[in-house]
Amino acid sequence: MEEQKLKELFDSLSIDDKVSQTIQLNGDLFVESGVMTTGPVKDLGFKKEPNFYEIGSIYNVNDYQKLYQIQKDVLTNSSHKIPLLFMSDIIYGFRTIFPIPLAQAGSYDFDLIQQAAEVSAKESYLNGIHVVFSPMLDLVRDPRWGRVMESPGEDVYTSKQFAKSVVNGYQGEKEMYLKENHVAACIKHFAAYGAPESGREYNQVELSNQKLFNEYLQPYQAAVEANCELVMTAFNLLNGVPATGNQWLNQTILRERFGFNGVLVSDYAAIAELETHGFAKDSEDAAKKALLAGVDLDMMTATYANGLPELVKKSEFAKRLDEAVWRILVLKNKLGLFEDPFRGLTQVNTGEILTQEAKDIATQLVEKSCVLLKNKSLLPLKPKSNQKIAVVGPYADSHFTLGFWASVSGKSSDVFTLKAGLLEQFDEEQLFFTRGFNLYESYEQFGPLKAGFEQLNGPIEEESFLLQQAIEQAEAADVILLTIGEQFLESGEGASKTNLQLPEKQIRLIKELAELNKPIIGLLYTGRPLVLTEVEKYFDSLLVVWFPGVMGGKGITNLLTGRANPSARLTMSFPKNEGQIPVYYAQTSTGRPLADSTHSERFVSKYIDAPNEPLFSFGTGLSYATFAGHWQSAKGNEEMIRCSYELKNRSEHDGWITPQIYLLNYSAEIVQPIKRLIATQHFFLKANEQKVMTVEIPKTVFTYFDNQGDLHFDAGEYVLQLDILGKQENLPIKIS
Amino acid sequence: MEEQKLKELFDSLSIDDKVSQTIQLNGDLFVESGVMTTGPVKDLGFKKEPNFYEIGSIYNVNDYQKLYQIQKDVLTNSSHKIPLLFMSDIIYGFRTIFPIPLAQAGSYDFDLIQQAAEVSAKESYLNGIHVVFSPMLDLVRDPRWGRVMESPGEDVYTSKQFAKSVVNGYQGEKEMYLKENHVAACIKHFAAYGAPESGREYNQVELSNQKLFNEYLQPYQAAVEANCELVMTAFNLLNGVPATGNQWLNQTILRERFGFNGVLVSDYAAIAELETHGFAKDSEDAAKKALLAGVDLDMMTATYANGLPELVKKSEFAKRLDEAVWRILVLKNKLGLFEDPFRGLTQVNTGEILTQEAKDIATQLVEKSCVLLKNKSLLPLKPKSNQKIAVVGPYADSHFTLGFWASVSGKSSDVFTLKAGLLEQFDEEQLFFTRGFNLYESYEQFGPLKAGFEQLNGPIEEESFLLQQAIEQAEAADVILLTIGEQFLESGEGASKTNLQLPEKQIRLIKELAELNKPIIGLLYTGRPLVLTEVEKYFDSLLVVWFPGVMGGKGITNLLTGRANPSARLTMSFPKNEGQIPVYYAQTSTGRPLADSTHSERFVSKYIDAPNEPLFSFGTGLSYATFAGHWQSAKGNEEMIRCSYELKNRSEHDGWITPQIYLLNYSAEIVQPIKRLIATQHFFLKANEQKVMTVEIPKTVFTYFDNQGDLHFDAGEYVLQLDILGKQENLPIKIS
Repeated sequence: MEEQKLKELFDSLSIDDKVSQTIQLNGDLFVESGVMTTGPVKDLGFKKEPNFYEIGSIYNVNDYQKLYQIQKDVLTNSSHKIPLLFMSDIIYGFRTIFPIPLAQAGSYDFDLIQQAAEVSAKESYLNGIHVVFSPMLDLVRDPRWGRVMESPGEDVYTSKQFAKSVVNGYQGEKEMYLKENHVAACIKHFAAYGAPESGREYNQVELSNQKLFNEYLQPYQAAVEANCELVMTAFNLLNGVPATGNQWLNQTILRERFGFNGVLVSDYAAIAELETHGFAKDSEDAAKKALLAGVDLDMMTATYANGLPELVKKSEFAKRLDEAVWRILVLKNKLGLFEDPFRGLTQVNTGEILTQEAKDIATQLVEKSCVLLKNKSLLPLKPKSNQKIAVVGPYADSHFTLGFWASVSGKSSDVFTLKAGLLEQFDEEQLFFTRGFNLYESYEQFGPLKAGFEQLNGPIEEESFLLQQAIEQAEAADVILLTIGEQFLESGEGASKTNLQLPEKQIRLIKELAELNKPIIGLLYTGRPLVLTEVEKYFDSLLVVWFPGVMGGKGITNLLTGRANPSARLTMSFPKNEGQIPVYYAQTSTGRPLADSTHSERFVSKYIDAPNEPLFSFGTGLSYATFAGHWQSAKGNEEMIRCSYELKNRSEHDGWITPQIYLLNYSAEIVQPIKRLIATQHFFLKANEQKVMTVEIPKTVFTYFDNQGDLHFDAGEYVLQLDILGKQENLPIKIS
Repeated sequence: MEEQKLKELFDSLSIDDKVSQTIQLNGDLFVESGVMTTGPVKDLGFKKEPNFYEIGSIYNVNDYQKLYQIQKDVLTNSSHKIPLLFMSDIIYGFRTIFPIPLAQAGSYDFDLIQQAAEVSAKESYLNGIHVVFSPMLDLVRDPRWGRVMESPGEDVYTSKQFAKSVVNGYQGEKEMYLKENHVAACIKHFAAYGAPESGREYNQVELSNQKLFNEYLQPYQAAVEANCELVMTAFNLLNGVPATGNQWLNQTILRERFGFNGVLVSDYAAIAELETHGFAKDSEDAAKKALLAGVDLDMMTATYANGLPELVKKSEFAKRLDEAVWRILVLKNKLGLFEDPFRGLTQVNTGEILTQEAKDIATQLVEKSCVLLKNKSLLPLKPKSNQKIAVVGPYADSHFTLGFWASVSGKSSDVFTLKAGLLEQFDEEQLFFTRGFNLYESYEQFGPLKAGFEQLNGPIEEESFLLQQAIEQAEAADVILLTIGEQFLESGEGASKTNLQLPEKQIRLIKELAELNKPIIGLLYTGRPLVLTEVEKYFDSLLVVWFPGVMGGKGITNLLTGRANPSARLTMSFPKNEGQIPVYYAQTSTGRPLADSTHSERFVSKYIDAPNEPLFSFGTGLSYATFAGHWQSAKGNEEMIRCSYELKNRSEHDGWITPQIYLLNYSAEIVQPIKRLIATQHFFLKANEQKVMTVEIPKTVFTYFDNQGDLHFDAGEYVLQLDILGKQENLPIKIS
């Protein structure tokens, strides 16, 4: 629709029409029997029930037939025929569920990440979705928080690259922008939701401005610069003010400083929660504060619906409402909904879901996101040999390896299990499968889904029986392949944990198997860094497979057999114990560093009972190949430094490699991290192949913000560090 | 000296003279054989060795004869005869060592705390000290940090009261201000040193301005308002800028906003450490930044000595140097040093140390600072009866119960042990003493002091032998009195810990004793909140005795026998596990509180494996008596609210009681804590006595700061909560 026509439509709207556009409700509203006024929507407490056909958007209906019908009903029943916007919690896949974001980011293959996002966009598009509630770009340094699974990890650079790739993958670039097979991205959660005090879900966040500008806000800003169409507010307080009612954050920073002009949507019920926080006096005050803070769309509360009609009698609020509604209409128009309200829906072909191409991308992403922490030459294994392998643990045959957020649109039955993968490549006689322990204590927690869980996962057995069975099978084998970790409900939203060790029964199983004196390969299924200190020593090889998505079994098997070679690196540190948290690589130097201080041993920055370093630091990740890298040269111009380095694969294994380049601490008005990642490259080196690579480092990398938000740059000497799988070489450079 | 004469003296100083005044060195410099240029001072790297007789001050010489000689030498050898200032790490006692500050604060007897500070001041004065490096007023909410022992705990109100009492106790009030038997107080560490990330000593701190103004800065400000003469900077980064080089913090806030005009001294070597942090480019830059940040005195580095002579060629720096030197001279003058450079020294009488009066105050403070966490009617014990008590554990006979900071001037041999205390009140036949476990694994760590430790503490024994012996003794007894905890080097500066549980051998001892099915009374010696979750259930009674100081054994025995009645309350929460940290009472509400949310169980602010609450919260503390309290009335005027409540001792035990009054969360532009302490009272109630008490709550209590530092006040409804040993009653009030 031309802007002029859109303007005319806008001008024709009454206050009530406008307020309706700012409402977003759960699509259940429409699903069961047309428009429903009972159930959750009734509980929201609308003072005057809105005409549900006039509201702005709904979310989490992922059935194209239902969406088709809803849109048809809306166009039939609404006065202005404004199409409804369909959003959904598509986080790391629609039906082709990919590895969780924390895993994906570790691939450092940002092209592949973008391809995966394109697959998600396409599947979403073909099922009628217009907006996906991702990527989540909350920098995370506290593994107690369950939602770390959904983030790209602890590092600013990695998160920024991830942000751009996913946003571009969803929205499409250039002429494909928001067109066929693409959807709008709603990044979240603005801002700093990933730093809750005590790692407790929804808890307050305290961060200085410099820390926000230099670190926490950077990934969101990268997404805004990549033109993400929507931003979602966060649940947390930021420095005493709820993010959802925070004018400074959303107006001064997001809108004015970052230049974001898209739709700002509250997180689920976050506007009403302004009152619960003790920030708003009552519901009307909550509406007022959220509106002034620039929130355009009220997700799942009646706060705007109840409060705005009265508020907008004042011009200040009327102006803000107009702005909000205009943005919502502009988004609908950008998506072409006025021309084609059934966007994506008319061409629906379920065959387009889970295509071979999509599965291949998913498999590659599994191969590239599993992190090899340890390998005493035990991997790769030898399929089609007389090597006997006891596959112990419940994950091998489990379909529940998609992770928390897949449940909205994904299907456990789609999962290609590890068992299926192993059986494809090994002789059946090589393999002995045994469950080892119950993945769930009971199925009661799954309520109505209980039967389905039991069917896919098998009945709960006696733990002692499972343990005994595992030991017997392992005794008969040459190698033990042991799957351990979290079950999928232990991470994700609402899953903060104080104890990050494996459950007692798993630790016991590991110890009992270790007594057999057979090599043990560990496969760790998890949504977060765990504390592996007690058990790590029992593994000859240890591969973190995260929640690997639908093609997990295939990708992991390829890694185990050497068809693929591990190349991923941790994007979040695994602590030595919970008492170290937060522990991450880009810390600032104290005045009394442990390594290099003139003070006596007692008076340096350390713990008396644990090292300062995590068990496995950010960047950890082995390959079957060995690589050697050396700096060659560095040349600068006005804009950038061009560095080159030589890299050699010194092994008989082909493999992908991700060299990382860090900037080391330098003297500055705001103390800088001891090191911070500023560039990565990702490429393939054949066995014994050698390459010279060039990397361009923009000079903006050497700038930083102070607490007033002002940018600093100092000409001078800096040191770059090339990191090739933990082997480091420094390069001093001069920047003028 | 009159100001005019002081001005003349100041004007007569050369640049070198002035720079010398800004130097503070360890008094070892003078002690061994007059002025020494070898050893630590040489290592400091003076470009040009200063005339040590001209420097501004020295610290930690606590021998009056030596100080007398040093001052005499200074006056003989220095050109301007400016007396040397003597400072010292007197933290919670000179020779009469009191309970650690974390314990003292829990007494809520601020008069008694002030009396203790007066004793410290007097003993310091009589030993020639002019300035004591305390109180430490760093708000602490992370028990991993070892220095929590030195602080008044997690609460703002408590810390402010503690600040005033100690400063007034040291400095004296009205006509006694800084006069005979008084010293100047140097509060520390400005600012926010008590919130190091990950609880790791010296680590960075991130706090918003509102959190600083509303909480962390309040105790320092209270001390400034009580006229503390000196402030010490902190080691940590605050929001990316080292506190010691932080202009905003020290100039804008401390000087301009709080009106502090005394001497600002760096912490030990903190100016040189500006370079280590990566904040200053080099040593001269460190001098420059610290000087501009308002630091007057350079503790224990050559940075000012080397850097200032060149810097002050610019008028900006010359002005700052003049300011610094003038403040140092003013302080010396306030102390009367120009009239009597031997202040305190000429009248020295060692009999004045550890007087009976001082010991009585110390004993009272022990009685009032031990916190009774649990009591199944087992306490008080029955002395002079046939009750047989196995006193198990190494603390009963240990002299090393003074805590980390006592070692500067205190003496372990002064300690009145628990054994001595028990033997005073019980029949010898009632008591069986047994060590239970070795308090130290070896004495090697004590270096040259090794022999002394061994002599006072006994030889290291086989752990299994000690365990067996303890069990045998306990079997023969009716009651087990078990002493457990930390040894004194496990807390204090440089003693951050990731694991806050008792050592394995202590847990084992507790469990083995519990199997005897005899009542167990636990006495916990500690410098910090520990994680007692695993062992708490084995104790019938549990008393936290902290590091109780020289009169520990006396005060604890009085509590055990009922001569005194426990009345202290925790000023810092004891976490359930390390994964909850930081856990404290004055948290802000999330939008999804666990207790009162409409959201499903998963999506509320909680952990999936632990409660949100600590094991023992701030404010916990039992009495042998039971009390009941009720609000009576509240009346307000322009300035304050006057509330009254009735309190009854419903038991046969006399006892001290500390009612606490909290302000509950209210709607505000900056989200307020769920509750915060705003008033306490402390008084004695005889058995069955009843009293009506009045408390005045100033209206300023209802104000709060935003992130710009602006003060807010809203008229409206508030709720006060009266807390009588955990029983709570609310009182709604209106403030206009």
